[in-house]
Amino acid sequence: MSSARRERLREKLAGAWALFIDQESIYYLTNFSGSNGTLLIAPDSQNDFLFTDARYRERVKKLDQGLNVSITADLNKLLKDTLAKSKEILIDGDLISAAKAQQLKEILPEVNVKLTKNLLTDLRIIKDLDEIAHIKKACEITSQSLWYLINDLRPNMSERQIAKKFWQNALERGADDLAFTSIVASGENSASPHHEPSTRLLKIGDAVTIDCGVKLNGYHSDMTRTVFIGKTQSWQVEIYEVVMQAHKKAVTESLVGQTAGEVDALARDVISAAGFGEYFIHGTGHGVGLEVHEAPILSKSNHTKIEENFCFTIEPGIYLPGQGGVRIEDTCILEASGLRILTKGSHEIVCVG
Amino acid sequence: MSSARRERLREKLAGAWALFIDQESIYYLTNFSGSNGTLLIAPDSQNDFLFTDARYRERVKKLDQGLNVSITADLNKLLKDTLAKSKEILIDGDLISAAKAQQLKEILPEVNVKLTKNLLTDLRIIKDLDEIAHIKKACEITSQSLWYLINDLRPNMSERQIAKKFWQNALERGADDLAFTSIVASGENSASPHHEPSTRLLKIGDAVTIDCGVKLNGYHSDMTRTVFIGKTQSWQVEIYEVVMQAHKKAVTESLVGQTAGEVDALARDVISAAGFGEYFIHGTGHGVGLEVHEAPILSKSNHTKIEENFCFTIEPGIYLPGQGGVRIEDTCILEASGLRILTKGSHEIVCVG
Repeated sequence: MSSARRERLREKLAGAWALFIDQESIYYLTNFSGSNGTLLIAPDSQNDFLFTDARYRERVKKLDQGLNVSITADLNKLLKDTLAKSKEILIDGDLISAAKAQQLKEILPEVNVKLTKNLLTDLRIIKDLDEIAHIKKACEITSQSLWYLINDLRPNMSERQIAKKFWQNALERGADDLAFTSIVASGENSASPHHEPSTRLLKIGDAVTIDCGVKLNGYHSDMTRTVFIGKTQSWQVEIYEVVMQAHKKAVTESLVGQTAGEVDALARDVISAAGFGEYFIHGTGHGVGLEVHEAPILSKSNHTKIEENFCFTIEPGIYLPGQGGVRIEDTCILEASGLRILTKGSHEIVCVG
Repeated sequence: MSSARRERLREKLAGAWALFIDQESIYYLTNFSGSNGTLLIAPDSQNDFLFTDARYRERVKKLDQGLNVSITADLNKLLKDTLAKSKEILIDGDLISAAKAQQLKEILPEVNVKLTKNLLTDLRIIKDLDEIAHIKKACEITSQSLWYLINDLRPNMSERQIAKKFWQNALERGADDLAFTSIVASGENSASPHHEPSTRLLKIGDAVTIDCGVKLNGYHSDMTRTVFIGKTQSWQVEIYEVVMQAHKKAVTESLVGQTAGEVDALARDVISAAGFGEYFIHGTGHGVGLEVHEAPILSKSNHTKIEENFCFTIEPGIYLPGQGGVRIEDTCILEASGLRILTKGSHEIVCVG
């Protein structure tokens, strides 16, 4: 698949060269996963080059044969030699440091090193079959681990203990890594959407928001549920039901051809109509793939049209300062007929412990 | 401690402003750990500013009181207003993307946005007492987990199984995270210093190189042992003893005032003298702190003088292509009297299973 991706990029480049040094782009275009790589995409496939160092001599042997690979301790010389005949080379300004970009300009004084944006975004935003399979599996491990954990919640467990349990369970089920540090936010902490798990102990009447995901074969998942310990309070039920309706509306009414901003509005309008608009303090979702946060960002101002095989989260929330909050999040894939949820399990109120 | 670090930086800046957006720098200078932050260091401490968004409203309340914090959805406006009176602002070109640097120049047309290097390197390279305590604890968890794992190695375990066991054990012992994806390289795979754990099963006569570390309170550890399953082969013993001597020489003879290149030579000369120079294909070590690889890099061409409270690894290795390899690595802290090893345990040949 990675050689087909290089061809799609080459077509888009229309005769220009491109250079990548970030791990995600290189993995996407070659399947190489080392910490040090420089990838050149040439106007013709015979001249694509991956440069890395001797630590990866064995690993590069497993890459597809269509790609030239050089092991080198003198990258600058190799770049000079290879790019001597190019006039212009594109680099994505979000995927390279300012210092590296400067250095490239210095070692290639006769080449127009051109900063550009979103070199791979419109390729990566549409997931191919391989990618969907990896994301589905990551979502499966996540849902299983999260529900196993939810069933086990009891008063007096600490947020940190809960976060660690998710981790261990996800590893046992085959995850390569966490997608990000899990968020476990209980009681008043749940008013903070990005709360760091603390030593706070669960108590009866708490809402507990658990936001978690795993990494598998380079791909991510992302999922959140807010559940209640022992009993619910009426204000919790009120905001829960609003968030649940917002989530449901965005999931059932998102369609190919809408803009990311329109999807955001599906959830946001429900929350605003219920009077909680000012407490929904983030976007409705974000793309998921080789990064856990990637395009498309579902926010008011994003006019990107969503298409088949876009993969993104739907995650409305309400956060009442000093009181607590609720968020419900699933990772979804957009199909011709609408959104399919990949992270499984109920969206109704769950009381445990 | 973080306000003292801001003062040391301010002194170095001698009247200039500096701006940071990377998580490590911001954590180092403020203890703030969110995924979105912009830190301004001003010529006088009253004007230092941390900007973040509403998701972190609760978290910033725990920061020290000397720091101005603004929650904003319009960072650009705030930057413009705050920096109106500055003439020049320094950013570290290695810690910001080319696109972000470009954007800063555009939103601050009247300010000289100056790319510089190593803004924090000479502060971060010397560890303070807090940092040393975190690194020591991370090293303790790592050694305990690794030796527990080594005792458990048996024929027919897969490299991936072993990597996962380290992970679970480290989490149980209190690690916040792994420092990096563990390397488990057995048999001929051990010839590849950065081998990715595979489904290969251990067998009698294998060398197994395990390179692992954990993250604790933002700080890292890094440690490697190569052990043998059931029995050793004579070529394995030969290279093991050379690596052990190289490791020992670098650990016992590193002294305050030497250059990083001289420390590299301590280990490298032993390996070269034994005839294996061309098979030691990486540097002798690297700094460890908020990043698992940071300054000083111990390589031939690095003339940085090592000083008290530098923290770095010593990790010589020999890698025979197609055959196998050996690496021995410890994280160490440089004291007035010499290097102290923080990752514990024998360097002699160990046979298990």
